[in-house]
Amino acid sequence: MSPPDLIQSLSAIVSSDAVLTGVSSAKYCTDWRTRFSGTALAVVFPGNTQQVAEVVKLCAAKQIAIVPQGGNTSLCGASVPLPQGKQVVVNLSRMNKILTIDPTNYTMSVEAGCTLASVREAAEKNDRLFPLGLTAIAAHCEIGGNISTNAGGIGVLRYGNMRDLVLGLEVVLPDGRIWNGLRSLRKDNTGYDLKHLFIGAEGTLGIITSAVLKLFPRPQAEATACVAVRDPSVATELLAHLRATCGDKISAFEIISRTCLDLVFEHIPDTREPFGDKHEWIVLTQLTDVLPAPLDTALHEALQTFGEGIIESGITTNKDQAERWWKLRKNISEAQKREGISIKHDISVPLSRVSEFISLAGTTLREAYPGIRIVAFGHMGDGNLHYNVSMLDASQNNAFIERHEQEVNRIVYEVTAKLDGSISAEHGLGQLKRDTIRVYKDPIELELMRSVKQAIDPLGMMNPCKVL
Amino acid sequence: MSPPDLIQSLSAIVSSDAVLTGVSSAKYCTDWRTRFSGTALAVVFPGNTQQVAEVVKLCAAKQIAIVPQGGNTSLCGASVPLPQGKQVVVNLSRMNKILTIDPTNYTMSVEAGCTLASVREAAEKNDRLFPLGLTAIAAHCEIGGNISTNAGGIGVLRYGNMRDLVLGLEVVLPDGRIWNGLRSLRKDNTGYDLKHLFIGAEGTLGIITSAVLKLFPRPQAEATACVAVRDPSVATELLAHLRATCGDKISAFEIISRTCLDLVFEHIPDTREPFGDKHEWIVLTQLTDVLPAPLDTALHEALQTFGEGIIESGITTNKDQAERWWKLRKNISEAQKREGISIKHDISVPLSRVSEFISLAGTTLREAYPGIRIVAFGHMGDGNLHYNVSMLDASQNNAFIERHEQEVNRIVYEVTAKLDGSISAEHGLGQLKRDTIRVYKDPIELELMRSVKQAIDPLGMMNPCKVL
Repeated sequence: MSPPDLIQSLSAIVSSDAVLTGVSSAKYCTDWRTRFSGTALAVVFPGNTQQVAEVVKLCAAKQIAIVPQGGNTSLCGASVPLPQGKQVVVNLSRMNKILTIDPTNYTMSVEAGCTLASVREAAEKNDRLFPLGLTAIAAHCEIGGNISTNAGGIGVLRYGNMRDLVLGLEVVLPDGRIWNGLRSLRKDNTGYDLKHLFIGAEGTLGIITSAVLKLFPRPQAEATACVAVRDPSVATELLAHLRATCGDKISAFEIISRTCLDLVFEHIPDTREPFGDKHEWIVLTQLTDVLPAPLDTALHEALQTFGEGIIESGITTNKDQAERWWKLRKNISEAQKREGISIKHDISVPLSRVSEFISLAGTTLREAYPGIRIVAFGHMGDGNLHYNVSMLDASQNNAFIERHEQEVNRIVYEVTAKLDGSISAEHGLGQLKRDTIRVYKDPIELELMRSVKQAIDPLGMMNPCKVL
Repeated sequence: MSPPDLIQSLSAIVSSDAVLTGVSSAKYCTDWRTRFSGTALAVVFPGNTQQVAEVVKLCAAKQIAIVPQGGNTSLCGASVPLPQGKQVVVNLSRMNKILTIDPTNYTMSVEAGCTLASVREAAEKNDRLFPLGLTAIAAHCEIGGNISTNAGGIGVLRYGNMRDLVLGLEVVLPDGRIWNGLRSLRKDNTGYDLKHLFIGAEGTLGIITSAVLKLFPRPQAEATACVAVRDPSVATELLAHLRATCGDKISAFEIISRTCLDLVFEHIPDTREPFGDKHEWIVLTQLTDVLPAPLDTALHEALQTFGEGIIESGITTNKDQAERWWKLRKNISEAQKREGISIKHDISVPLSRVSEFISLAGTTLREAYPGIRIVAFGHMGDGNLHYNVSMLDASQNNAFIERHEQEVNRIVYEVTAKLDGSISAEHGLGQLKRDTIRVYKDPIELELMRSVKQAIDPLGMMNPCKVL
């Protein structure tokens, strides 16, 4: 099929103003971090599931590969086309309707193109919480992409990953058939749970067009603690102690290293040390409750009954004070960006091995590259660290990264593997880690993944060269 | 391969005292409810994963089908061999070691043959909770079977189904290879999440040999309410109100109809009306908390601020009083069994449609069969009802069931389907509902299931004629 014929056929399905090509399609062909760039035969914007199905059928008939796309905020290059210009991008952003909200069932049903922010807002209007917490990009990322990448964020230790927040899916399969799995049931044991195949598959098995999401009661009470701890092992023990004493109320448990704080103070206005003295490791933790409970007292008692290792701590129920502390955590990525580029990792290990990871990876890297800067922070409550490596002098970074990125990655991933961890905790594989995962994943598991791909997408039309 | 040769080869793998045939194998060939009976070439009891793998390899080479078996407490006939006597039962009960417990990571790693009771006990010894709540059969059912059937029970509304309690799996695949997916990570996005294929697959894709389970903090505070409500719709609204006011603390929300209560009073000693007056519908709900919180006060306020429809209620933090109420709920199945046989269903609908289900199914059934008895009770908090139908006069039941079972099933399942429900909420399909599901499930979904089966078990050696 010639490109003009293809454009014409696609336009006949979605209307001509919903098909972009050439320059106007460029922004949909480069990823959020501008790390991956490609070109597309066309970027199409279907308005409903039927149109998605027709586009997929057309492409399947012509053996044209498809790249499903939501808000295009992926960090691993899963949502952009390859450079050869032979793929069609199917962007779901026009499908942004909240379909139904059932407050009694604590569910809502939404189209895949709804932004995370709009989903959260709609839930809130119905006095419910949709807990996925990617605050920085909530206005841009879309729920279909959140599902396809099994998004994480800050609330996972309490509410689970995106996978845990989905009850049902509608998916357009690689041959254009529509699977309607839009159930809103808490229990259903009638065969293989297929939705879990599509969740986290990064668009390689089909296009998610709608979903039924779980909602939760909105918390009324809130308390935040900022705790300076002697070292990460104390943070690990503190988390276990908090869980044992405060249980499900822990909604966040984040760790921040001194290096992160210094970068934030340098680059982000109106930020300052949480304590008079400087400390090497800070934990930010938040309790929330639907009951108007005295959570500050609970936090206070939990910190009191904890053993050694807390240097200083503050507790607040004041939202402004809490926001000042959270500002430190939320601006680490931005501060880093202003400082310059770095070699980024998104790893996870068992909670009990986080401090071992920090110690072992740090020692090994510093031996290999004396004088480097390690920026370690993140979702300690899930054993998930963002772990970024650069030179102290930002001007040396380009050369450093060019020469040593692979070796730095190797060191970090070897330590991760040694501690039974994952080289991609919440960002997925996409193009970025597609090759690397082959080194670290059991060949039998890779083979099983390929069998599943072959079973659902035998012609390999869905997002080829991503994940697998 | 002749049967004696097979026995010899199996004995060489697992030792001769771990291979049963003939009469001694009979109890492993009949299910818990004595509804499904078969015969096996042999029942083997491997002692470790390697032995399971070798047994599977041997059977695969000889094209002998395998029935994986745990405690054999399945309610749908998934865990017993077919009548033709051509299958080998692989019973995991000897593999009953608790492998590791990591209280800091809130995880434990166990062999598949551990009973649920032993897993709960080991967690408790480490001051942790494993929340799967199948109290009646916890001493018999095994964790591998719980995972393979995605077991439910009373705690699902708070802790999720078995699926939500599993972090990692080890599985012997249909060709005898071992997939080691024993991860204990809270976040891992490195490709398709294969464990979800095996969870709930009822042994049709492989044999689960070990698992990493999530643990939770042990609750310290507890309060129970017994609430007489005007009708099931009030119960639904009460649940939504309780969630909004007491949140995650709700650990159980069960409904019991008058018929259930009368059966319990008739057949179970030391049981009595929870209130002075008789009421048609009773809700039992429990709050628990890790903090020593005043949960009775919370329950009291929640009931106070609820609108119309509560007839009477009682709240207690006294364990004996709570146990007297729970005794009513826990003995319904036993009371029913003593009364006689019935046509049983295990359905779920969205929480907001439970009362519509009760009303519509009841009306339709009573029109078709005047004078029947409907025993409706169960996990209202998950939209999951056990819904059993029989004649008032137990002596007429055999004839009634023989003549009308299919039609009663049809009526119940049609109503379920109309309300977007599931015909098997927590018991699975097994042999019992294998044909029925084909009527109610989207053909595309069935085809996807078959594609997956074909991809993982191309020779159809794993538990054939179950589920699919």
